[in-house]
Amino acid sequence: MAVIGTVGAEVLIPLAAVIGIAFAVFQWYVVAKVPVPSHDGEDGGGGAAQKGRSGHDESAEDGVDYRQVEARCAEIQHAISIGATSFLFTEYRYLAVFMAGFAVVIFMFLGSAQRFSTRPEPCTYDPARMCRPALANATFSMIAFLLGALTSVMSGYLGMRVATFANARTALEARRGVRRAFVVAFRSGAAMGFLLASSALFVLYVAINLFGVYYGDDWGGLYESITGYGLGGSSMALFGRVGGGIYTKAADVGADLVGKVERNIPEDDPRNPAVIADNVGDNVGDIAGMGSDLFGSYAESSCAALFVASISSFGTEHNFAAMMYPLLISAMGIVVCLATTVVATDVAEVKTVEEIGPALKRQILISTVLMTVGIAIVSFLVLPHSFTLFDFGRRKLVKNWYLFICVSAGLWAGLVIGYVTEYFTSNAYRPVQAVANSCRTGAATNVIFGLAVGYKSVIVPIFAIATAIYASFRLAAMYGIALAALGMLSTIATGLSIDAYGPISDNAGGIAEMSGMPHVVRERTDALDAAGNTTAAIGKGFAIGSAALVSLALFGAYVSRAGVAAVDVLSPRVFAGLLVGAMLPYWFSAMTMRSVGSAALAMVEEVRRQFDSIPGLMEGTAKPDYATCVKISTDASLKKMLAPGALVMLSPLVAGTLFGTETLAGLLAGALVSGVQVAISASNSGGAWDNAKKYIEAGASAEARALGPKGSDAHKAAVIGDTIGDPLKDTSGPSLNILIKLMAVEALVFAPFFAAHGGLIFKHL
Amino acid sequence: MAVIGTVGAEVLIPLAAVIGIAFAVFQWYVVAKVPVPSHDGEDGGGGAAQKGRSGHDESAEDGVDYRQVEARCAEIQHAISIGATSFLFTEYRYLAVFMAGFAVVIFMFLGSAQRFSTRPEPCTYDPARMCRPALANATFSMIAFLLGALTSVMSGYLGMRVATFANARTALEARRGVRRAFVVAFRSGAAMGFLLASSALFVLYVAINLFGVYYGDDWGGLYESITGYGLGGSSMALFGRVGGGIYTKAADVGADLVGKVERNIPEDDPRNPAVIADNVGDNVGDIAGMGSDLFGSYAESSCAALFVASISSFGTEHNFAAMMYPLLISAMGIVVCLATTVVATDVAEVKTVEEIGPALKRQILISTVLMTVGIAIVSFLVLPHSFTLFDFGRRKLVKNWYLFICVSAGLWAGLVIGYVTEYFTSNAYRPVQAVANSCRTGAATNVIFGLAVGYKSVIVPIFAIATAIYASFRLAAMYGIALAALGMLSTIATGLSIDAYGPISDNAGGIAEMSGMPHVVRERTDALDAAGNTTAAIGKGFAIGSAALVSLALFGAYVSRAGVAAVDVLSPRVFAGLLVGAMLPYWFSAMTMRSVGSAALAMVEEVRRQFDSIPGLMEGTAKPDYATCVKISTDASLKKMLAPGALVMLSPLVAGTLFGTETLAGLLAGALVSGVQVAISASNSGGAWDNAKKYIEAGASAEARALGPKGSDAHKAAVIGDTIGDPLKDTSGPSLNILIKLMAVEALVFAPFFAAHGGLIFKHL
Repeated sequence: MAVIGTVGAEVLIPLAAVIGIAFAVFQWYVVAKVPVPSHDGEDGGGGAAQKGRSGHDESAEDGVDYRQVEARCAEIQHAISIGATSFLFTEYRYLAVFMAGFAVVIFMFLGSAQRFSTRPEPCTYDPARMCRPALANATFSMIAFLLGALTSVMSGYLGMRVATFANARTALEARRGVRRAFVVAFRSGAAMGFLLASSALFVLYVAINLFGVYYGDDWGGLYESITGYGLGGSSMALFGRVGGGIYTKAADVGADLVGKVERNIPEDDPRNPAVIADNVGDNVGDIAGMGSDLFGSYAESSCAALFVASISSFGTEHNFAAMMYPLLISAMGIVVCLATTVVATDVAEVKTVEEIGPALKRQILISTVLMTVGIAIVSFLVLPHSFTLFDFGRRKLVKNWYLFICVSAGLWAGLVIGYVTEYFTSNAYRPVQAVANSCRTGAATNVIFGLAVGYKSVIVPIFAIATAIYASFRLAAMYGIALAALGMLSTIATGLSIDAYGPISDNAGGIAEMSGMPHVVRERTDALDAAGNTTAAIGKGFAIGSAALVSLALFGAYVSRAGVAAVDVLSPRVFAGLLVGAMLPYWFSAMTMRSVGSAALAMVEEVRRQFDSIPGLMEGTAKPDYATCVKISTDASLKKMLAPGALVMLSPLVAGTLFGTETLAGLLAGALVSGVQVAISASNSGGAWDNAKKYIEAGASAEARALGPKGSDAHKAAVIGDTIGDPLKDTSGPSLNILIKLMAVEALVFAPFFAAHGGLIFKHL
Repeated sequence: MAVIGTVGAEVLIPLAAVIGIAFAVFQWYVVAKVPVPSHDGEDGGGGAAQKGRSGHDESAEDGVDYRQVEARCAEIQHAISIGATSFLFTEYRYLAVFMAGFAVVIFMFLGSAQRFSTRPEPCTYDPARMCRPALANATFSMIAFLLGALTSVMSGYLGMRVATFANARTALEARRGVRRAFVVAFRSGAAMGFLLASSALFVLYVAINLFGVYYGDDWGGLYESITGYGLGGSSMALFGRVGGGIYTKAADVGADLVGKVERNIPEDDPRNPAVIADNVGDNVGDIAGMGSDLFGSYAESSCAALFVASISSFGTEHNFAAMMYPLLISAMGIVVCLATTVVATDVAEVKTVEEIGPALKRQILISTVLMTVGIAIVSFLVLPHSFTLFDFGRRKLVKNWYLFICVSAGLWAGLVIGYVTEYFTSNAYRPVQAVANSCRTGAATNVIFGLAVGYKSVIVPIFAIATAIYASFRLAAMYGIALAALGMLSTIATGLSIDAYGPISDNAGGIAEMSGMPHVVRERTDALDAAGNTTAAIGKGFAIGSAALVSLALFGAYVSRAGVAAVDVLSPRVFAGLLVGAMLPYWFSAMTMRSVGSAALAMVEEVRRQFDSIPGLMEGTAKPDYATCVKISTDASLKKMLAPGALVMLSPLVAGTLFGTETLAGLLAGALVSGVQVAISASNSGGAWDNAKKYIEAGASAEARALGPKGSDAHKAAVIGDTIGDPLKDTSGPSLNILIKLMAVEALVFAPFFAAHGGLIFKHL
């Protein structure tokens, strides 16, 4: 029926993954060619051949001592890298305890669903046949969970390594022009993006094949336990995002409030005691956190699609190639993104500052257009002409081009979200300029306008998501939704490239400032960074949009697995769940905002104390105590990530166990529809404030110059807005998309238990 | 079966309404005894007998010219009253056009549901019988709509008259001590509260009886058309809240930003050109807007309960007394509130500043406890021992004590919401103190903490609402929900009393400041006002909580009337509606926030211009041009209320007509569960910031004194937070509860049309 059969799928998926990994290594190799002296004075390994090239420095006019600058550069890079590594290792120690504990919880809950019986039992969707025992599901779900958690941790860690490797190199290359700096930062982002996308695909593929050895042709059981992979990925991502988010924003807010507002010293000034913590934060929050986050979305959408497919005709008729359709889409995505990346690095190179933003935007457009073709190819080569899908108990007849439309709907909805996000957060357009302009009358109007921009930016993305949901839901029920999510994430490698590029440029700017490079270098990195703010917002838009689709797909899978007949809003159990679920994002945000606020207060007091008590610090003759600030951020983030984490992890367990499957379904739907709005508006308000500030600082228009320069009243008002936006856009907002999808995947994994034993309170009333 | 029959109900309801109105008039009479010279120099009518009493002024030590102060006082009162009246009349002219237009829309849509046929048609819920034609429904719905709109307008207008009558009297009495000032402000609030609650009941009662003349025993048709009353009330309330909210906050923000922040002059200083607009705003926004709002909630919850009852056994068996149960509850509420008010004004009088807050809190507690007894009395005297209710096509057997629990659940949930709101917005407790404390590190941390407090304050109210919904839903289906809403609103007279008391005190403070009364008078009115901020927040909590219950009840009635079988989240139409519905509160808030922001910008520029261009203004030798500022607020609010109003009014029409009844059901549910959260958090963040500022200003603790005094950096940061909170708590937040209930009642009124012709897009696809 279809052109590509089992063997084809078995070959193409790992092949694409290997190509992607090789491409990532190649990018890393190119970046490594930029020489950075080792931090104790010698050149780093990769750059030995290029020693002395810094003589070509374009910015060499102003009598800076290059050796000293480069040495300082290496030293700072080393400090950031050490700080980030040590934080992540501390965090991972906590997470290891959690992982072990939660693995036991999974085993106990799922095992107890059938009293730890080792005997085969009737299949859930075909009671006439016998399937593997619940104990096998408990065991394999636990293993999949651990595997997902480990891959997630690895994704975050590798991303951080790439970024801390690239930051100084970007700064050094910025001396030689914008183009070179852009390419280094972008290639580093690509190294991270491809590494992550490819290894996620690879690990999932291997796990499916290994689990298959035990499960044989019980595909329902196999893919049910595979969903643990998504749960593992997302639960690590949650802690990574929240912990990293608190870390980075405590440092950032603390550093800005004292440095920029009180002491009038520039951002990233080495005299600021919180500056190292701030730069470490970019790497552990924006890079490692985001890496884990998108890995989680990717893993979950694949798991959701596989689970639904396994109880459809693909699964019951054992059509392996069609079953692997989601993975083949991802494999195609890697190839498409590879081509897209080459356009940016080799075909249409960036030459001036003005070209950076459009070049990044073009990346998204190119990958989307190419991917649409890629989806068509995969759909028509892999899928049978028509087949049946499981649609809440009914069988639904579906044609192969339906699925092409589902995947494409998600992909293009992602593009719409990306472009709308850019419109509302880039200072090239009216919304951010109006926010900047409102700074004329002070911080209050700035905040009011920024909040309004964030709220307004929700409208179009929600319509885009709703349309994609409606179309794919109608065409292919829950499988369609899962595919739409996968479609939005199919260009994840490119998405991550341009997303990671932002914090790398931000760090590069910090290193340029701290190592005393000429002012022109800082201007170049600032230009890279401003485009990075927008791409970061776009990345968050993708993360949120895909999370909405993913969690809806998981929600559908949960409802199927738990045997909920209908999630009727007019049932008191469902409505109460819906209302409380819609509240959870607020509860969660209250915790994270407060955590950032109080950690920032502690940071401010420490920074003030150092300025007041260390003689010669302001004059630059004495060194600040960076380590204490790093410790404040570390302690705050590790301590404060527990409560919000517990809220998210426990809510579905409590709701399902005490109030039953229907209330839990309401809870998930409520958290989903409310959380998406909060997340989008928080991210975009934050992005708008950040770029309104940058708009005033850059002074590129008459309006902007009338508001500036740095230090003017309007600029101070803009800094306040930026600071308020920090926890919104980098802590609460991006964590919320993990909240909604994590709760959904957790509900799915525990569905057998809830179906058997849920609703204790009602049973005893 | 029941003790009170038809005659009893026919007598008791109008009797309670008349008693309530008489009590309101009595309160007004007592307030009027305080003499205010007429603004052209003579004493006002009511106070002639008491002329010259100002010689007893307790604060008469500091050589102020009393005659001049009193004359100025009268002059300012007159200016505020003129400003408010002229704004409301202008607003009402716009609304008259809208009302006429929308009345035609109602007639056309509902008439066209059965092609304007004048022949009787089969009843919706009992097709064997014949009911009145759809054209009758169209006509009477239109009349009910106009009646509701007029009553709403009248409620707002009368409230404003009472408040502008009372403000100067409160200021004058404040010279003679806190106790006297409190009693005047509180009695005025009571005058408004009882007038509104009683006339709302009375008009509804009369309308039912008059409509009944035509409808005879077609009670289904009668109460279906009566729902137009709720729609009329709420649509006026929407424009009142939005228009008034923009008016008051543009003036307030503008006045504060220039006066307090830039020029360092006190609040309400007569030199500030925006000060009259600010004080007018309190009366048209907080008083008239809130009056219309709560009237709307009351009208809608009554209509929802009546509609559901009419298709239950009460209606089909024509048990008039049981049918009137909702109105009898409201009648009992008036009596209970009357007793509660007497406690505050005559039994346990307030003697010191510290007693104000507790006294107001006690009012809520007393009315709740008494009302619980009242509900029991009504339930057991009026209702048959058991009866059947309509539960989405099924019949549900219900006992009379079930309904007692439903009403009480709403009532006590209201108490919980009130107390939680107080905890999060009063500066007597830790949350507001922590917000104030965060001002140490500037406006940014203040805003972050304030947002977090607002988010956190959502948790308990949502659990309270969810519990009330679950309990009443289980016991008596949608009728239970409507009764819970009614229960929360049953003590509306007391709620409005303490709510209206706030803006009156605020105005009194303004008048004291502007008329040059001694400083001690201002301190007393400030103390009244601080308690008023908290009661305002409590009032908003009630309004939001009841709106959530009301709109759920209306939603249920809509679903019944439109014949939607189930609102299944797992249907693509419903889910898309749910997601978009959850977005609407953000869209709406974006509009209102931006409107306030840009109107405030215009106001700031005008105020700055006057300070810069009018010589002698700062020195107090020249008078500012108040009228231009009033005009800016007026124009902005009238122009900017249209778009958000249109969004709310059109969304259900568009969704129902184009996408059909299911999508509209999803839309309503989404807007409900998301809007409640946004509304509560916005109101409480705003309240917390306001009182954090007042906490610093009052300096009542060591912590507060360390942050102050007025003009310190921490205080300036607090003022910024307060300003940001203004549009959140007085424009967006309170308008959102109208959004959710208005959309629901509109859906219900238009349900016959949607059921017949809705979903055009899908029909043609």
